[in-house]
Amino acid sequence: MSRIHNFSAGPAALPLPVLQSMQRDLVDYQGHGASILEMSHRDSVIVDVFERAEADLRQLLGLTDDFAVLFLAGGARGQFAMLPRNLLPDGGRATFLDTGTWASGAIDEARKVVDVDVLWSGKDGGYRRVPRPDEYVVPADAGYLHYTSNNTIYGTQCKQAPVAPDGVPLVLDASSDILSEPLDVSRHGVIYAGAQKNVGPAGVTLVFVRRSLLARSRPTLPDVWNYALQTEKESMLNTPPVFAVYAVGLVARHLLDNGGIPEMDAANDRKAERLYRCIDESGGFYVGHAEPGSRSRMNVTFRIADGGLEKAFLAGAEAAAMSGLRGHRSVGGLRASIYNAVPEASVDVLVSFMEEFARTRG
Amino acid sequence: MSRIHNFSAGPAALPLPVLQSMQRDLVDYQGHGASILEMSHRDSVIVDVFERAEADLRQLLGLTDDFAVLFLAGGARGQFAMLPRNLLPDGGRATFLDTGTWASGAIDEARKVVDVDVLWSGKDGGYRRVPRPDEYVVPADAGYLHYTSNNTIYGTQCKQAPVAPDGVPLVLDASSDILSEPLDVSRHGVIYAGAQKNVGPAGVTLVFVRRSLLARSRPTLPDVWNYALQTEKESMLNTPPVFAVYAVGLVARHLLDNGGIPEMDAANDRKAERLYRCIDESGGFYVGHAEPGSRSRMNVTFRIADGGLEKAFLAGAEAAAMSGLRGHRSVGGLRASIYNAVPEASVDVLVSFMEEFARTRG
Repeated sequence: MSRIHNFSAGPAALPLPVLQSMQRDLVDYQGHGASILEMSHRDSVIVDVFERAEADLRQLLGLTDDFAVLFLAGGARGQFAMLPRNLLPDGGRATFLDTGTWASGAIDEARKVVDVDVLWSGKDGGYRRVPRPDEYVVPADAGYLHYTSNNTIYGTQCKQAPVAPDGVPLVLDASSDILSEPLDVSRHGVIYAGAQKNVGPAGVTLVFVRRSLLARSRPTLPDVWNYALQTEKESMLNTPPVFAVYAVGLVARHLLDNGGIPEMDAANDRKAERLYRCIDESGGFYVGHAEPGSRSRMNVTFRIADGGLEKAFLAGAEAAAMSGLRGHRSVGGLRASIYNAVPEASVDVLVSFMEEFARTRG
Repeated sequence: MSRIHNFSAGPAALPLPVLQSMQRDLVDYQGHGASILEMSHRDSVIVDVFERAEADLRQLLGLTDDFAVLFLAGGARGQFAMLPRNLLPDGGRATFLDTGTWASGAIDEARKVVDVDVLWSGKDGGYRRVPRPDEYVVPADAGYLHYTSNNTIYGTQCKQAPVAPDGVPLVLDASSDILSEPLDVSRHGVIYAGAQKNVGPAGVTLVFVRRSLLARSRPTLPDVWNYALQTEKESMLNTPPVFAVYAVGLVARHLLDNGGIPEMDAANDRKAERLYRCIDESGGFYVGHAEPGSRSRMNVTFRIADGGLEKAFLAGAEAAAMSGLRGHRSVGGLRASIYNAVPEASVDVLVSFMEEFARTRG
């Protein structure tokens, strides 16, 4: 079978040249006589893979040496638990913007160990939008302010970072939109992202920590969860998820070789614009979930007004070699995830299908 | 270059047919039109990969339904921290046999949250052997007894599981010898293993937990570290390390198709016997680290009596396409790791090289 049009929310599409490069090298990595899966993480070949991945991520994101770059296991949910334990003492106070399921998950984990203030929640409104800056006030004594820039399940996205008082670090879960658009890293204390949407396969989480915050890590933490120790050991405190880091490095290099974030940003704009226009011009046949000002460029969430048609929609899409369009099991409906690696041509195929489906079933 | 003879201590050699299968499927997994790296973990294709991996591991190890099978992130060091938090309440008491660096690591992590009794330590003896059953007594009120069956750095291995009173669960770190020989799982409460030595690539840790112990998991634990929750969610509480689990499944299937553990056991016996005989018959040119009764079949640790020759040994081995023979950086010397996937032919090449080296330099 040729390649499907992959709209999976994650793990998600990867650039074809990256997959082909992995395939070519899988049994014999660049003439070393062994697979990259078979090499010690202490081998200079692997150390070099890690160093290049880090350097390329730094270049893409403009990450200065003020930040440590960590490659950790355990996913974003692991970070939900690590963050309060690394950034706050007992009795510390973390603040959150609750913009959806992942933000709520981060809140629930933090509550286990620190005091939590939820400054704004979209829950009662069905998480259809993100907050305006005038809808919340960050206390000057907050330990940090945590936010989720893109909400995969509800299809909303922050168009700008929140504003917090000086001395209150911004902590960002960028799992589903990192590398998709410019990001002002300088305004943040910690940025983290599970790799499996825009950056690579499942199995590694990128964590960028401002070095000035490393002194806060609690010494009683498990070693593998201690940002300061992981920084000191350059993510090799124990055997890291080598293959996933290698894959992240290939993706980062692929982006740099293809225009970097400005080029991704422009393509993502075009892809999202086409899909939202199709929804908006469907005469009410398709209904977007997110309020227009909060729409995500990564996850386009929508329903068919006549919900009984969604099953036929999904079957028809699958027959036309499109996958991953079912909405998250917690909300239902439909969702097209159009991360960096989803080609514009796939979006065109989807839009044509949606137009045709509306015409014949509307 | 053709394949090297890979004696890496981990990540380590994988069976060539497994690598070739991954390579074949990497861009298009079995005609699905997408890479296994690009599929949602909720996709039935991936769920099936997980279920088959679990079923094949159960068959290989004779794991009954009394045990949950978990695929977790964070490595064995992650388990060092998870174990006391899942098995013991505050004020609980864990007991340990200190047979080397990994056992010590498990002890250090446990000390952060529970009372620890080290019942025996090989430290003063340079970790050259494992304890005899008459050298320690496990208190009847111990929360559990933790041991490490194979010690990669010092090259020692337990020939039998420790004896503990009824009601004291045995907890086994089997990271470096699981699937290499028969294991009486019925005597254990928890068995865990980082995959990257005998079972697959880095990135996933196998954890087999007796279901009767799951009620002990502390509810305040981070969700991703909670054995009970991970069991309930079938290792998909959050996005799991899909590719590493897929690889583990391929290795398990490969073993089943090639005689299972009895066949591995016999081959591992032959490989280790040849190497130790070479050391023992070298007239003192090579000196084994472990006492003969405690010798590991997985990691053969030795020195050259004239230590100044080790550099030339390593250079000569590398020139003859052998890699990974340098001892662990914490102890020096030489080490040949001969896990399941290291072919007998590679051991023959190494033995010939060692004999020739001793003859010409001795």
